[in-house]
Amino acid sequence: MRLFASLPSFFRDNYPSAERLGVPVARWRQSIYRTVFETNTPLGKTFERYLTLAILLSLCVVVVHSIPGTAEGWRGYLLRGLEWIFTLAFTAEYGLRLISVRKPWRYALSFYGIVDLLSIIPAYLAVFFPDAQFLAAIRALRLVRTFHIFPALHGFLSEYLMLARALQASARKIFVFLSVVAMIVLVMGTLIFVIEGPEHGFTSVPMGIYWAISTVTTVGYGDVTPATPMGRFFASVMMLLGWGIVAVPTGIVGAEISRNGTKARMKGVECDTCGENRHEDDARFCRRCGTRLQST
Amino acid sequence: MRLFASLPSFFRDNYPSAERLGVPVARWRQSIYRTVFETNTPLGKTFERYLTLAILLSLCVVVVHSIPGTAEGWRGYLLRGLEWIFTLAFTAEYGLRLISVRKPWRYALSFYGIVDLLSIIPAYLAVFFPDAQFLAAIRALRLVRTFHIFPALHGFLSEYLMLARALQASARKIFVFLSVVAMIVLVMGTLIFVIEGPEHGFTSVPMGIYWAISTVTTVGYGDVTPATPMGRFFASVMMLLGWGIVAVPTGIVGAEISRNGTKARMKGVECDTCGENRHEDDARFCRRCGTRLQST
Amino acid sequence: MRLFASLPSFFRDNYPSAERLGVPVARWRQSIYRTVFETNTPLGKTFERYLTLAILLSLCVVVVHSIPGTAEGWRGYLLRGLEWIFTLAFTAEYGLRLISVRKPWRYALSFYGIVDLLSIIPAYLAVFFPDAQFLAAIRALRLVRTFHIFPALHGFLSEYLMLARALQASARKIFVFLSVVAMIVLVMGTLIFVIEGPEHGFTSVPMGIYWAISTVTTVGYGDVTPATPMGRFFASVMMLLGWGIVAVPTGIVGAEISRNGTKARMKGVECDTCGENRHEDDARFCRRCGTRLQST
Amino acid sequence: MRLFASLPSFFRDNYPSAERLGVPVARWRQSIYRTVFETNTPLGKTFERYLTLAILLSLCVVVVHSIPGTAEGWRGYLLRGLEWIFTLAFTAEYGLRLISVRKPWRYALSFYGIVDLLSIIPAYLAVFFPDAQFLAAIRALRLVRTFHIFPALHGFLSEYLMLARALQASARKIFVFLSVVAMIVLVMGTLIFVIEGPEHGFTSVPMGIYWAISTVTTVGYGDVTPATPMGRFFASVMMLLGWGIVAVPTGIVGAEISRNGTKARMKGVECDTCGENRHEDDARFCRRCGTRLQST
Repeated sequence: MRLFASLPSFFRDNYPSAERLGVPVARWRQSIYRTVFETNTPLGKTFERYLTLAILLSLCVVVVHSIPGTAEGWRGYLLRGLEWIFTLAFTAEYGLRLISVRKPWRYALSFYGIVDLLSIIPAYLAVFFPDAQFLAAIRALRLVRTFHIFPALHGFLSEYLMLARALQASARKIFVFLSVVAMIVLVMGTLIFVIEGPEHGFTSVPMGIYWAISTVTTVGYGDVTPATPMGRFFASVMMLLGWGIVAVPTGIVGAEISRNGTKARMKGVECDTCGENRHEDDARFCRRCGTRLQST
Repeated sequence: MRLFASLPSFFRDNYPSAERLGVPVARWRQSIYRTVFETNTPLGKTFERYLTLAILLSLCVVVVHSIPGTAEGWRGYLLRGLEWIFTLAFTAEYGLRLISVRKPWRYALSFYGIVDLLSIIPAYLAVFFPDAQFLAAIRALRLVRTFHIFPALHGFLSEYLMLARALQASARKIFVFLSVVAMIVLVMGTLIFVIEGPEHGFTSVPMGIYWAISTVTTVGYGDVTPATPMGRFFASVMMLLGWGIVAVPTGIVGAEISRNGTKARMKGVECDTCGENRHEDDARFCRRCGTRLQST
Repeated sequence: MRLFASLPSFFRDNYPSAERLGVPVARWRQSIYRTVFETNTPLGKTFERYLTLAILLSLCVVVVHSIPGTAEGWRGYLLRGLEWIFTLAFTAEYGLRLISVRKPWRYALSFYGIVDLLSIIPAYLAVFFPDAQFLAAIRALRLVRTFHIFPALHGFLSEYLMLARALQASARKIFVFLSVVAMIVLVMGTLIFVIEGPEHGFTSVPMGIYWAISTVTTVGYGDVTPATPMGRFFASVMMLLGWGIVAVPTGIVGAEISRNGTKARMKGVECDTCGENRHEDDARFCRRCGTRLQST
Repeated sequence: MRLFASLPSFFRDNYPSAERLGVPVARWRQSIYRTVFETNTPLGKTFERYLTLAILLSLCVVVVHSIPGTAEGWRGYLLRGLEWIFTLAFTAEYGLRLISVRKPWRYALSFYGIVDLLSIIPAYLAVFFPDAQFLAAIRALRLVRTFHIFPALHGFLSEYLMLARALQASARKIFVFLSVVAMIVLVMGTLIFVIEGPEHGFTSVPMGIYWAISTVTTVGYGDVTPATPMGRFFASVMMLLGWGIVAVPTGIVGAEISRNGTKARMKGVECDTCGENRHEDDARFCRRCGTRLQST
């Protein structure tokens, strides 16, 4: 819920504000600040555009690197070279951010400060522990940096905010719904484990729950499936059940979105006397103070 | 339908009311009653919180116990120990509930009384019949106890009631819809059995029905799939059909939810002068003629 | 479309009306007619109830008979015996229907007359051609008889009609939508056949289309799946596409259902002067003749 | 977005207009033009009908040809013969189109001109490079020609336009939604690759992304599935997540469709006396104050 609540503001500003970070006095630090932190100056916009590009390219390198065969021969050298170039560039960016503010710790301890740091550390660690598999997991964090891209899409901001608000407004209903689903899945997972048993692939209750979720969400991998007549009857009931309740979140979010649309149409005109501006489109008098509204 | 009809009241109160159970005269029994049955006294709230925690933990133990390998060695001892502790705790709780009311049979024969009893019996039975597989099935009943948690989430009550009411209102439509789906699935299951036959995995009509349900609900396990060209053509028709009719329950529930939401927002008062009655809840003047609205 | 158009009337009356069949003059034939054709006489209701039960039971026998192992030993004798009893009963019913009307051919050539005949023929044919597999296909027709049950559910008639009307109203939109889907599936099925080829299971274009349908409808059997990187990329695009367009039929039917709901609320009061009765609930004057409406 | 924006006009006219192509002066060329380009003359209609039939039949031939076994013996000769007949017919059609206009290049370089050319080239190329597999890919382009059929379905035009407009109106929201899904899928695909690794089928990050898409869209092929407990837990979270967000596009399109429907029904006129403007299209008196409405 917290997550949902912070979504709209999250899409608007990512880094701590200028007031919190403290814009420095020195000219050269100010101009760096303007470039790396602000997104409404010409230089800042250019910087953000190239940064977004660099992040996307570095992601491509990480993705391509994971394909077996690409890490060998000249392609391996190329990929590792590119990875190092990106790592150094991001390190420089991190350094510039630290230098250009008066309170570097504020930045370093902010969410994006930590993300910026974590996205460059794995490459350095990989020098000392070359086959540490777990490092790749940290690399995935670099993906969070792509959230940078969102504020760049200024044109789509209203759509982002609208979707975020619809999700936020229905967060409580969805939470309630998910808790009911959790209960169903728990009961069903236990029952199928009892009915089918380990000899048909249902090795434990968690396995049964995994199967129940894959059935109720209509994903249906088919890696574990009931093999007894009773298990199949039971699965059939569950599929129909899942099919029925899949309608619920759709209904919740759909209703929220169409309500939002209605609200948007309801903005109407502003009252000259009291300033109330949430009037329906066909209202002729202010619903707050009774003054006749000026049509637009 | 009965089930749906009783949903809202079900989420409000689980145990029989104080009037039905009969609050005892003795002080010590009264104070036990206050603790184990009432949820608006400080002690009752604390008790409920710990009970909910105990139920969740005991569920975890049951779930973990089912994983192969965990029942051996020291972990097996730990798990069995924990299970006994929880069983004894729940037995004590059951005893306290029986003692603290004047009409213990009323409690014992109520839905939750039976659930409370059934959730402790399997552990005792397991002593005498150690490898009775079917006992685990009864253990799953313990899950019903987690419904206790629902009333504890007082904040979400309105969302529960709203969802329950939406489902209740569309229960008849969904029943009608399911009966049509049942017909389709029956016809389709028989036809695929005739088309594909036992040599491609469709060993019987029930198997065909199981396949038809898994196809129409878009689950698609893939454990039995058509292998002849005609069977595949037939399956394609069914997938498209299922895709089309999946829209129906979504539409039903969605329409119900958005109707509920609109009703709640728009109850408003009627204007004495022009009769307009679609005012928002916080409007003070008529949006049509500017007359002051009489609050209700 | 024809099918959809005839749905509401289909659910109301199945057999040709008394005027078309010609009620006979003889007393005993009239009383048979009252029993087997009319559903609002006490005897007719009882007959219909037992007929529905008999149809459902005979279906169970057919379904159970298809399970391997049940056709052997005493159970086989029992099942075949029951099947013969039902066949004879349905033959008698067919005879009674033929006898009790003045124009038997009208009945025999009506849709339900043909269904009634086809549902008893296979059993007799099976005597002469004992292992004719194709006969089972005709047996499935017996299922159509269960449509009898629908009018029996008088209480749910309004829901049936409402769903049927919603589907009928959106039939054109759904047809248009399906033709677009057909095009997508055709193009995609051909492309995946070219990309993956027979060595990965895509043996022909129809096979590719079958895969495309199973992907676009999110069924995803997994019996044929892409194995090349390009095929997988292609499949990913299709899954997202299918996911996006699954919203369309849901939106169409959902909008239709919620519109129907609105219409229902719009029935309002009847105008005393001109008889117009489709007023919105909050209308105070007739929208047809301007007379003040009497509130209910 | 461009694609969506051009959809409504796309369904209306496919070939460049008469003004752009230049209708020739010569009688015989004019009459050819009337036949092959115009669709509202009797001859033009007949031509279009046969062309549509020919395209559909030639598609059938291509589809049937791909089935293994059909390309051998007399059936192979028949199919190849039919393919050549269709190719020659389409070549003749292409020639007629080129001849009948004053500016043949305008036609040749228009979208449909290129499609017409590309749909006949593969057959000729196949003579010189008989086993070129990639040619079949170009053949699939012939399918685009079936778009011809759309304008022929004049009766359904309003439904096409309505669906196209609904998609166009929600294109921005769907784009935003897809970008969020892309992010989720990227993060999830990387994480599952790290968790499960190549030994369980997740050979690379793209493979992980492929799996993530198949899970989030509830397709669930099951060709790669998690095999470790943690991977399964992770997959369960993703299925529920995908299930939740599948509601979003449904909600967007659904809200758009029902808004479109409402708008169409409720445009109405404004009452001169009270200003009420939500009248149904066929209302003649104001539903609020009974004044006669001025028709528009």
